[in-house]
Amino acid sequence: MAKYELDTLRHSTAHLMAQAITRLFPGHHVQFGVGPVIDNGFYYDIETDYRIKDEDLPKIEQKMLEIIDEKLPIERKVLSKQEALDYFEKENQHLKVELITSLPGGEEISCYSQGEFIDLCRGPHVESTGDLPKYFKLLHTAGAYWRGQSDRQMLQRIYAACFYDKKSLKKHLNFLEEAKKRDHRKLGKELELFHFESVAPGSPFFMPKGAFVYNELIEFMRRIYRKYDYKEVITPQVLGSELWHTSGHYQNYKDDMFFTNIEKGEFAVKPMNCPCHMLMFKHFRYSYRDLPLRFADFGRLHRNEKSGTLAGLTRVRTFCQDDAHIFIPLNDIQDEILTLLDMFFVIYKHFDFKEIKINLSTRPEKKVGDDATWDKAESALKDALDQSGHKYLIKEGDGAFYGPKIDVEIADALQRYHQLGTIQLDFQLPDRFGLKFTNQQGEEERPVVIHRALLGSLERFFGIYLEHTGGAYPFWLAPVQAVIVPINNDNHLEHCQKFAKELTKLGLRIEIDDRNESMGFKTRQIQKSKAPFMLVFGDKEIEEGTVSVRSYGAKGSKTFSLEEIKEKFSALDLEKTPHAIREM
Amino acid sequence: MAKYELDTLRHSTAHLMAQAITRLFPGHHVQFGVGPVIDNGFYYDIETDYRIKDEDLPKIEQKMLEIIDEKLPIERKVLSKQEALDYFEKENQHLKVELITSLPGGEEISCYSQGEFIDLCRGPHVESTGDLPKYFKLLHTAGAYWRGQSDRQMLQRIYAACFYDKKSLKKHLNFLEEAKKRDHRKLGKELELFHFESVAPGSPFFMPKGAFVYNELIEFMRRIYRKYDYKEVITPQVLGSELWHTSGHYQNYKDDMFFTNIEKGEFAVKPMNCPCHMLMFKHFRYSYRDLPLRFADFGRLHRNEKSGTLAGLTRVRTFCQDDAHIFIPLNDIQDEILTLLDMFFVIYKHFDFKEIKINLSTRPEKKVGDDATWDKAESALKDALDQSGHKYLIKEGDGAFYGPKIDVEIADALQRYHQLGTIQLDFQLPDRFGLKFTNQQGEEERPVVIHRALLGSLERFFGIYLEHTGGAYPFWLAPVQAVIVPINNDNHLEHCQKFAKELTKLGLRIEIDDRNESMGFKTRQIQKSKAPFMLVFGDKEIEEGTVSVRSYGAKGSKTFSLEEIKEKFSALDLEKTPHAIREM
Repeated sequence: MAKYELDTLRHSTAHLMAQAITRLFPGHHVQFGVGPVIDNGFYYDIETDYRIKDEDLPKIEQKMLEIIDEKLPIERKVLSKQEALDYFEKENQHLKVELITSLPGGEEISCYSQGEFIDLCRGPHVESTGDLPKYFKLLHTAGAYWRGQSDRQMLQRIYAACFYDKKSLKKHLNFLEEAKKRDHRKLGKELELFHFESVAPGSPFFMPKGAFVYNELIEFMRRIYRKYDYKEVITPQVLGSELWHTSGHYQNYKDDMFFTNIEKGEFAVKPMNCPCHMLMFKHFRYSYRDLPLRFADFGRLHRNEKSGTLAGLTRVRTFCQDDAHIFIPLNDIQDEILTLLDMFFVIYKHFDFKEIKINLSTRPEKKVGDDATWDKAESALKDALDQSGHKYLIKEGDGAFYGPKIDVEIADALQRYHQLGTIQLDFQLPDRFGLKFTNQQGEEERPVVIHRALLGSLERFFGIYLEHTGGAYPFWLAPVQAVIVPINNDNHLEHCQKFAKELTKLGLRIEIDDRNESMGFKTRQIQKSKAPFMLVFGDKEIEEGTVSVRSYGAKGSKTFSLEEIKEKFSALDLEKTPHAIREM
Repeated sequence: MAKYELDTLRHSTAHLMAQAITRLFPGHHVQFGVGPVIDNGFYYDIETDYRIKDEDLPKIEQKMLEIIDEKLPIERKVLSKQEALDYFEKENQHLKVELITSLPGGEEISCYSQGEFIDLCRGPHVESTGDLPKYFKLLHTAGAYWRGQSDRQMLQRIYAACFYDKKSLKKHLNFLEEAKKRDHRKLGKELELFHFESVAPGSPFFMPKGAFVYNELIEFMRRIYRKYDYKEVITPQVLGSELWHTSGHYQNYKDDMFFTNIEKGEFAVKPMNCPCHMLMFKHFRYSYRDLPLRFADFGRLHRNEKSGTLAGLTRVRTFCQDDAHIFIPLNDIQDEILTLLDMFFVIYKHFDFKEIKINLSTRPEKKVGDDATWDKAESALKDALDQSGHKYLIKEGDGAFYGPKIDVEIADALQRYHQLGTIQLDFQLPDRFGLKFTNQQGEEERPVVIHRALLGSLERFFGIYLEHTGGAYPFWLAPVQAVIVPINNDNHLEHCQKFAKELTKLGLRIEIDDRNESMGFKTRQIQKSKAPFMLVFGDKEIEEGTVSVRSYGAKGSKTFSLEEIKEKFSALDLEKTPHAIREM
């Protein structure tokens, strides 16, 4: 057993960093904010007129190591609120003064000192700076509003990783390195997939290659929908506020919506498709024979996310979902859920997500619908999950007030979990919109609505999948599936063009690189573009009726006949529809 | 030569109708507004406390015929403004009084009398009601604001057709009958393609079949784009007002846009894609080798059309276009225009539009860009048109202030012309956004932008094409391509399902009608749905390995082998790409 909790080490190392900073920039008064422990390390927020740059971080680390070697004892002191205020006011630590002021009156206040450095802190801490392991790394700086409030001043935040041992630190740093390489914002730029403009925060511009992938994800879902009997609809984006009153969004979601005025009415840009589908269901008279009725919609949604929270494709203001609403009798839920789970697994496996977690969230305290309905719905979900053979976790009381739900999380290539799919039962919307169908007994019955998405927000999925693959898309999804290169343009270009045309006729996406550059340069560029294949034609290949093929990531090339390549590519392209779906 | 101009007959028949109305509803005081001649007839606006219904129209027609038989002389009287005011005030004709009041002071005012009826009118008129031909037809009533102002009272408008002879009237009534049958709003409902909801005026809800056709139009254009080297992009819909200032939309188009506030900024929902594409072009450094660069975008657009002007799919508040912007050196325009004309003709012919008109609009008085540039651009357009061999009309001075343009109109099945395509040169936007590329000499050069659309608004095209086809879509576009019917479910359903599956595997859209209804009923329903084919299986067909096939609109059935049908359907489905494009 280690002498200290890992959190204690991390917290003490945060103090160590603060002390190192005061020593390193003596000419600059440094105010300290908060320095909490976080996953894999800690951060500290500071305010000073010196702007700490990433180049300063090694110097701070060096100073930290020195203080460890000084083996300064770390001592706890208890002060009254007034004593603490007096001390930190004298020290000109206004941020600390503000923190102390907001503490309740009677409480005793603790500070920790190590050498000349004293910090307000609840503790616990290690006993001496000499007890601190040297397995930390200052990662980067960032801006952060004081107390997280966007109307307060911006502080400088320094993030650090910190571990018991060298191996763990190294593993984490490798992970960070890999995550950085795969950062979808970086890859999006490098692979010319998307970019952002200041006139539209949180609203990606998809460049041709990115738009191809985006549209292909939609087409992929359409192929799936065809097999599972979903009916795609197209619905308006700007709808009168009376609709949002009926749906309840006006009462509960207004702050996240964009509003506009048209003539004398107030309209909102839709943040969700559901109310449109409720209207469409209501427009006709349906009988039990028409159910389950599944409306799918790739309609563009807009949500008023705060500009401070926007991040690449994972937090945006505008996105589409692979959204569907299923209108179904309460009694038929179980079969539908079973089918949905099937769909989820087929699709996630097709995108090569190997680990999948399922959570079932049951009725919360505050809820609509009677207990009998909840009993029925929850046991339908449980029975379907049991029948499917998948493991799942029950989150008691974690359902929405309008129905129980199933969430599905996947692990990406870096073992980070992301929630993608959701199956959400809804007893409330059918009620609010007064939906009904004629059941087998000829009576009017209220359907249940299932909200469900598999990929979720296509923008967010685009980002997650880009990081998962590192931009090396599978053949069926690659914007450019193969680049053909003539060894020299004079003798081989025509042949390349002829073969490119044959492949294009098979529906494949082929480019020719006929620039006046060396083969080495072109090979590196094509590898960098992550196109699945590079095909080279020279005298030998033309004479033999073959082609030299280099796969993405492979070290060398292999020779194939042209027919073999056509067959291989056609077979790979077929994977745009999962095998399980093709065989249905 | 006829004794009177057709317009004179129509105008006098309008007076005749007014007189008939006063005679027919003597207990109701009728105020007369205006009664002008229009294409094919006339209308008259009146105000009265009796609501004239369509059922009243034959009674009015009857009374009109009686007054013709009375052969009342029609006499012109000239009054001073004061005399006219006195007369119409006495007669309690406040609308006429308002009209007279707004006439200039010195002018003489003419009235026409026929029997007891006197109307303010500039004339000319026939000499006697006996001179009027009986070839008119009151069509329908409608509401119309007095003087066309939405803040004035609503009058009743009666529309009428009126011709010299019986044949012309009959022809026009047949045309109206056919147009009514093909009205896209009616067909949209009957064929379950789209509907509207009061919460979203001018914003269609496309039901599954309509959404299929809509998406297939987009896919159709994508197949074309692939061959013509267009690059599809996806751009945001909500963009900050500074962008609209840069583009000039804020100054010139603000009233047609929807605005919303986000945090402290003003944002607009985009009415056009162009500014987004300018930003995308500006985002990279392009050289002459990258040009022409063609950005295509099916982005959803919103425009603030007045609620009074909204009409079905032809005037909506939200739509997508098959929109593209081509960035091109001024010197390369001619070739690009030639290619564009090619594209236009291939596509319009594929949609079976046989008559196509082209207009070339040249520089207006107020314009941007110097004359040398306009000279070059206009002669490039002319040369391309000449080279293409198509006839065209020059509209001198009708170009936009930012560049010359080519408009393309097509005639539908009822010989009504609609403007679909447009090719619009733009010298201004590249300037406003400071666009440039590196030309062959290594210098920075400003590209020209070509805005171009082929189908135009997809919503509007959807409506026009629905009326053109009457809803009988070609095989490749039909939401359901064939309906398979078993003669009886017990013996033949399984066989139907098997064949349906084989066709579905070919990518075809097949339904089975296994309802417990008679064959006659099903046949009528399938004809009404306008599915291209109905396939019937009974004992005989199953035994012989054939199927009985009825084409849409055909009187009887023909027998084919299953292989023949598969080949025929596959060949028909190939037409989703025009032959000329497939062969490129």
